[in-house]
Amino acid sequence: MDNPHEYFMKFALREAKDAESRGEIPVGAVVVCNGRIIARAHNLTETLTDVTAHAEMQAITSAANVLGGKYLTDCTLYVTLEPCVMCAGALGWSQIGTVVYGAIDEKRGFGKFAPGALHPKTKVVAGILADECASLLSDFFKKRR
Amino acid sequence: MDNPHEYFMKFALREAKDAESRGEIPVGAVVVCNGRIIARAHNLTETLTDVTAHAEMQAITSAANVLGGKYLTDCTLYVTLEPCVMCAGALGWSQIGTVVYGAIDEKRGFGKFAPGALHPKTKVVAGILADECASLLSDFFKKRR
Repeated sequence: MDNPHEYFMKFALREAKDAESRGEIPVGAVVVCNGRIIARAHNLTETLTDVTAHAEMQAITSAANVLGGKYLTDCTLYVTLEPCVMCAGALGWSQIGTVVYGAIDEKRGFGKFAPGALHPKTKVVAGILADECASLLSDFFKKRR
Repeated sequence: MDNPHEYFMKFALREAKDAESRGEIPVGAVVVCNGRIIARAHNLTETLTDVTAHAEMQAITSAANVLGGKYLTDCTLYVTLEPCVMCAGALGWSQIGTVVYGAIDEKRGFGKFAPGALHPKTKVVAGILADECASLLSDFFKKRR
C-alpha cells in the first residue's frame, strides 16, 4: 500500500485534474477524517467568477457541513499546492488538525507571507507527491502561454 | 452631509447590528462602486456553521456576482473591523481598490499577521467610526460572558 499521505494526495491530484479539465488552475483538495474522505473540492475561481473559490475554501465549508460543526480539529486537509494567505487564514479559523500539501508556492504560499496564519496546534507536512503536483501546474501554464 | 467614508461605514454598522440580532459576532461590510452600494453582508459563521462566512468574504463574492467579474479594482470595501488574514488574502486576490475599516483588531487583524496580504495598489483607510464599531463588539462580548 502507498504511504497514507501519498494515498490521499492522489485523490487531491484527481481533483486538480478535474479543475484542469474545466480550464481552471489545477489545484485540488480533500479532507480526511478517521481515515475517510469527507470532502473533495477543486479550484473553481473562473467557473464561479469568485476569487474565494479556492479548493481549500470549498473543502473547509464542505467538511464542516458533513461534520455539523465549524471546527476540523480531527481532520487532515490534503491539497496539491501550498495554501495561499486566504486559505491558510481559513484553515487557522477551522483549527484543522493537519495540513498536508504537495508543491511549494514560492509566489503566494502562506509560509512566506503569513507564517503564523494556522492554528498553533496544526501540524504541517509539505512536499507529498510534490513533483507531480507541481508538473500539473507548470504544464497548465505552459499550455496557456 | 457626512464624510463619505463615515456615510458608507454607517451601512456597514447596520449590517453588523443585523449580525448581532442573529447572535453572530457583530461585523458588517458593504462594497461600494461608483458611489453606489453593490453588496452588503454580515458575519454568518454560526448560522452557516462555516468559519469562512465572514462579512468580507460574502461581500467579495456578492460584489463579483453583481459586476460579472472577479476583480474589484474600482470598488471600496467598508468593514467595521480590521480584516483577518483570511479576508485580507481574499481582498488581495480581488485586487480591490480601497479597504476602509473601523476598529483595529489587535488579536486577529492582518496588519500584524499578514501585512503584505493586500494587492500592492490597494489603498487602506483605518479608524472610520472606530469607537462605534469597537463598542458594538465589546458590548457583544460583555453580554456573552
